Amino acid sequence: MTQFTPPKGPAVAPDTAARSGCGGRGPVSLRMPEGDDRLRKVCDDCGFVYYENPKVIVGAVCTWDDADGEPLFLMIRRGIEPQLGYWGLPSGYMELHETSHAGAAREVWEEARARVETDHLLAIYNLPEISQVHLIYRARMMTSHHGAGPESIETALFRWDEIPWDELAYPNVAWALESWRKVRGQDGFAPMTGPV
Amino acid sequence: MTQFTPPKGPAVAPDTAARSGCGGRGPVSLRMPEGDDRLRKVCDDCGFVYYENPKVIVGAVCTWDDADGEPLFLMIRRGIEPQLGYWGLPSGYMELHETSHAGAAREVWEEARARVETDHLLAIYNLPEISQVHLIYRARMMTSHHGAGPESIETALFRWDEIPWDELAYPNVAWALESWRKVRGQDGFAPMTGPV
Repeated sequence: MTQFTPPKGPAVAPDTAARSGCGGRGPVSLRMPEGDDRLRKVCDDCGFVYYENPKVIVGAVCTWDDADGEPLFLMIRRGIEPQLGYWGLPSGYMELHETSHAGAAREVWEEARARVETDHLLAIYNLPEISQVHLIYRARMMTSHHGAGPESIETALFRWDEIPWDELAYPNVAWALESWRKVRGQDGFAPMTGPV
Repeated sequence: MTQFTPPKGPAVAPDTAARSGCGGRGPVSLRMPEGDDRLRKVCDDCGFVYYENPKVIVGAVCTWDDADGEPLFLMIRRGIEPQLGYWGLPSGYMELHETSHAGAAREVWEEARARVETDHLLAIYNLPEISQVHLIYRARMMTSHHGAGPESIETALFRWDEIPWDELAYPNVAWALESWRKVRGQDGFAPMTGPV
């Protein structure tokens, strides 16, 4: 389990050790490096190979129990394109030098200003057409506090029957929420492997 | 479940849609894009942001049952640095436009020339210090055939007590193999979350 502590000031992400020999200043062309079987972006000046690989999206289905012990689901209304104005779950690109569960908790903080403790991996699914791997965690809110971050219009804690099903940003939002219900109260479950 | 079919000829990996406006020819400096809270590599000419994110490593614990129904474990002796000459499991960087399970099966083919069917996600673990997420699948070999790919010195099918425990490339090799034993014969288990 991981609790997220909001960062103090900006973090430096780029991994300078991975920089090319010419500092990224040479022209790049598509070539197949020796021993490889794919075309890669290679620097014409210094030979550095700019590998491109899938990106990891980390997110969470976060809940807070109401006075009756019924779960309320933390959702955000998107303040940026795509799907501006539609409802989703806090999620985003995993950053360098963090774990996937810490990244999920960070996204919850950034988009919904809630502090959560991640629990189990709820779902892993692939979107190969856009080269993404989504890792969605189950998370419990530490307090009932939430609020819109810079990329959100508003946030809300919905009872299941209050969720704006007709205004969801993506089909996988409903699918992730339903996955939560399927394993409610369980530990030791296999993560769901995708809506498609 | 996913069966891997060996590719016919080289694949083109780079995602040209993600290229910068200047074709990658402008000098790059570290700046904080508007609305961001981290320093990123930004092209001085066209403003393109070169985001850097963790890489996904996909691999598999692959087995073939011997005549007594006992599992034999497919291992490779590394033909490249680091850990040249030490034993490991087939694994490597996930490529663009593939799923994580297909990527694991591809790595098994490339490094051990075996055709496998992936089953459940056996383990997910993070190495944040080198910005890697490892997704290790359980896989069954379709036939007992195996052989060294270009990055391997040799391959072998070991009984549990034959595994060269003193010559493993990394501690997580033993850990992944032990994870396999813990969930032997089970479905619906939670993936292990790491040796550390």
